[in-house]
Amino acid sequence: MLLTASEIARRIGARLEGPDVELRGVAPIEEAEAGQISFIANPKYVKHAHETRASALIVPEDLELATSVTLLRARNPYFAFQQVVRLFHPETLRLPPGVHASALIDASAELGPNVAIGPFVVVEAGVKIGANTQIFPGCYVGPEVEIGEDCVLHANVTVRERVRLGNRVVVHAGTVIGSDGFGFAREGGVYHKIPQAGTVVIEDDVEIGANCTIDRATLGETRIRRGVKMDNLIQVGHNVEIGENTVVAAQAGFAGSTQVGQNVMVGGQAGFAGHMTIGDNALISAQSGVTKSVPANTRVFGYPARPVEQARREEAALRRLPELIKRVRALERELEELRKKTKT
Amino acid sequence: MLLTASEIARRIGARLEGPDVELRGVAPIEEAEAGQISFIANPKYVKHAHETRASALIVPEDLELATSVTLLRARNPYFAFQQVVRLFHPETLRLPPGVHASALIDASAELGPNVAIGPFVVVEAGVKIGANTQIFPGCYVGPEVEIGEDCVLHANVTVRERVRLGNRVVVHAGTVIGSDGFGFAREGGVYHKIPQAGTVVIEDDVEIGANCTIDRATLGETRIRRGVKMDNLIQVGHNVEIGENTVVAAQAGFAGSTQVGQNVMVGGQAGFAGHMTIGDNALISAQSGVTKSVPANTRVFGYPARPVEQARREEAALRRLPELIKRVRALERELEELRKKTKT
Amino acid sequence: MLLTASEIARRIGARLEGPDVELRGVAPIEEAEAGQISFIANPKYVKHAHETRASALIVPEDLELATSVTLLRARNPYFAFQQVVRLFHPETLRLPPGVHASALIDASAELGPNVAIGPFVVVEAGVKIGANTQIFPGCYVGPEVEIGEDCVLHANVTVRERVRLGNRVVVHAGTVIGSDGFGFAREGGVYHKIPQAGTVVIEDDVEIGANCTIDRATLGETRIRRGVKMDNLIQVGHNVEIGENTVVAAQAGFAGSTQVGQNVMVGGQAGFAGHMTIGDNALISAQSGVTKSVPANTRVFGYPARPVEQARREEAALRRLPELIKRVRALERELEELRKKTKT
Repeated sequence: MLLTASEIARRIGARLEGPDVELRGVAPIEEAEAGQISFIANPKYVKHAHETRASALIVPEDLELATSVTLLRARNPYFAFQQVVRLFHPETLRLPPGVHASALIDASAELGPNVAIGPFVVVEAGVKIGANTQIFPGCYVGPEVEIGEDCVLHANVTVRERVRLGNRVVVHAGTVIGSDGFGFAREGGVYHKIPQAGTVVIEDDVEIGANCTIDRATLGETRIRRGVKMDNLIQVGHNVEIGENTVVAAQAGFAGSTQVGQNVMVGGQAGFAGHMTIGDNALISAQSGVTKSVPANTRVFGYPARPVEQARREEAALRRLPELIKRVRALERELEELRKKTKT
Repeated sequence: MLLTASEIARRIGARLEGPDVELRGVAPIEEAEAGQISFIANPKYVKHAHETRASALIVPEDLELATSVTLLRARNPYFAFQQVVRLFHPETLRLPPGVHASALIDASAELGPNVAIGPFVVVEAGVKIGANTQIFPGCYVGPEVEIGEDCVLHANVTVRERVRLGNRVVVHAGTVIGSDGFGFAREGGVYHKIPQAGTVVIEDDVEIGANCTIDRATLGETRIRRGVKMDNLIQVGHNVEIGENTVVAAQAGFAGSTQVGQNVMVGGQAGFAGHMTIGDNALISAQSGVTKSVPANTRVFGYPARPVEQARREEAALRRLPELIKRVRALERELEELRKKTKT
Repeated sequence: MLLTASEIARRIGARLEGPDVELRGVAPIEEAEAGQISFIANPKYVKHAHETRASALIVPEDLELATSVTLLRARNPYFAFQQVVRLFHPETLRLPPGVHASALIDASAELGPNVAIGPFVVVEAGVKIGANTQIFPGCYVGPEVEIGEDCVLHANVTVRERVRLGNRVVVHAGTVIGSDGFGFAREGGVYHKIPQAGTVVIEDDVEIGANCTIDRATLGETRIRRGVKMDNLIQVGHNVEIGENTVVAAQAGFAGSTQVGQNVMVGGQAGFAGHMTIGDNALISAQSGVTKSVPANTRVFGYPARPVEQARREEAALRRLPELIKRVRALERELEELRKKTKT
């Protein structure tokens, strides 16, 4: 595909600066070749602008830059980059519309227009699937599941009975939604399973990575709210609620009944105890072990997780601890000597 | 379903206190509506009893409670709750019995009475499956696998060759049992795979969560003993043994050849080095990094994991460290001054 | 299978010491029975040599050992053990060659000689699969994927569009290769997906465990280099590169664009922030949280990860901190007294 810089600027709402050029693709700034467009979202990478072979660069509106490269000035350069990637890569993987002959669709299932269902998919009784939704090979869609419009279930996804997905939900390969919550009552020295009679609700515009597990509620719902983005291998326990536009990095885990607010950012491998509340806009650093509720607008770090300033102060102090022990030993010796002197 | 409080009390062996009422469901105490039954297992939640809209409450036998709500007094209220959830939700997801026409069952496989096998399941040569066991769509059951009675394999489970499952074993979707252990011998600068010629044995009444991985032994067996309950995304390395009625929370991982005792509780995201022994009744806190064997009846915490009292003392001390550094600095100054005075 | 000790010694290049004996299998030294061969790779396990019932032992060339057991002396005993396991267990699970009638192979796919494809596999348009490669049931192989010779894809693996695998690559069950990288641009309070238009390249002789997730690059490639060995449940973010013969233990995770060198060893549950460089031969201890680049030949530990000697010193100091606080309190009291004395 060939696009001119002026055409791209027009389509993404950027301001063109410098000569118009023909562009055939987009690349990271270090790897870009002549004929490609790249971007600088963060002024600290401005040095790359002087070495890049890219023919055009998306840059912040007010960035000062002495260069002969064609510039596209944008208010939100990272978002502009996202739009340019879409221009050059307009279509990702798509299934052909229609139901593959090998798929097993229960007669009671309701499929919207233009639904695409791949080979070896099972769709059980009472399922509803909205328009344009694609379900890749090997997926299992349990009884009475509801899936909205424009969703994608990648290969080998399992969605168990009665789970509900909104519109434009993307679920990556191997993920399991609606597995039983982990609940057992101990009696007579053994564990008795508590039936997990609730369900999972995934709201609109949620994306869930590969090989995640989202457990159904014991009673009621586990709920992932509108716009949440989750990376791979994430565990969501029963009755958890994750608030709108919260972002969760890979391998994080949420124990049962924890409530996460809106616009929270959760780092990779972070873990959350159960029955806690995480306030809106909280930042949970990677690998944190969150054992207590976190107030809104707070950044926490470490295990047990604590406010980041405190944690950093403590970490810095820990760096000095071996030396501190020596200093205390020296003080003790000096004091001993001084005491002897004072006695005499 | 409608059940009277007296009928429920009779069936779960609880003592009714207050008026008999008709109940149509069970709910958590904060969410319960009129016509529902809820429970208090822990006296610290007793405040909710005064606000709940539930029409009946399961409570401990000796709990003092001034309320007009109908009470069901039980010795083990959480177990009583479990029984009540079963009364209102007697049946979970079930496959229709019989083998689906699309499933591929090797002619040499032996299936017990009332076995249910879903679409697109593969059952290889020499497999034995006990009565009433259900295997959901997309599962792969490798050669010579043995599965007992009343088991459930949810969708897209992989059970590799020669693995043996006992009776009443539940395996959630996407889990892999019998993958190769991680063993390589380095020679000539590269790694040579050690064939993983052993197997995995899962005993009776074990439940394994979704997207777990349980590796086969190099030689001999990886063994999960009777009554073990495992949550999602757990890794069990080759030749590991997990003792009876041990409970493992999500995303925990066990490196090769570690032996875990009975009635151990393992928190989420805890990690275990290889070739260790974890004693009976040990408690391993969430996210602990267990680098040494743990004696029986011990609670450990942190990374590296250490007895919880020690870890808490150290954590509390760490909170005070930044201030301690200042105090030592002050001491040094004062001592310096004092020394000057003493000299003069 | 029966093999004599002399025959085994000849085939693995070991030196026989003691009487020739007939052997029917291989076992760990504590479990070995008469008629079995075992090994000692590490002198610290030499005590087991005096108690073992094994009829032959692989030992280091120069190990002094007073025993009547037949010895096979080898330069690299662990590698010799690997070879002996292969002798006794020459073949692991194999699919029958050919394409199963239920598999769906696009007419444009090119299959090399002796390829084996199991039931319910989907192979999309433009795929190339090399000689002798085996693809187990339930796998999905997306459009234009290339897979080399002598590869094994275990059951329920998903390989998405355009991913390339070299020769002798093994992928364990449930793993997902080529899922979308985790990239979103925030604008107007919501996240906009950045199309993940790149791919994944897995070079020759790589082994990837079960239920791993390896994301495709945003642009360009995620690359796993020759000879890498990865355990289960590992997350590899977009644009990550892992160097030759690096070994990664279970549940480790790499955030986007991190570059890992050659011969690195990564412990279980270790986590890596994005955009970092890990030098050749680095050792990353289990559960480490790597937040900064690591130089070559460095061992790091802890969270945040730091050189192991430093981390150990700090950990040892932390053990002494509660006592140190008491000592500082004592010093303060004594100094106070001393000052009073000096004043008077």
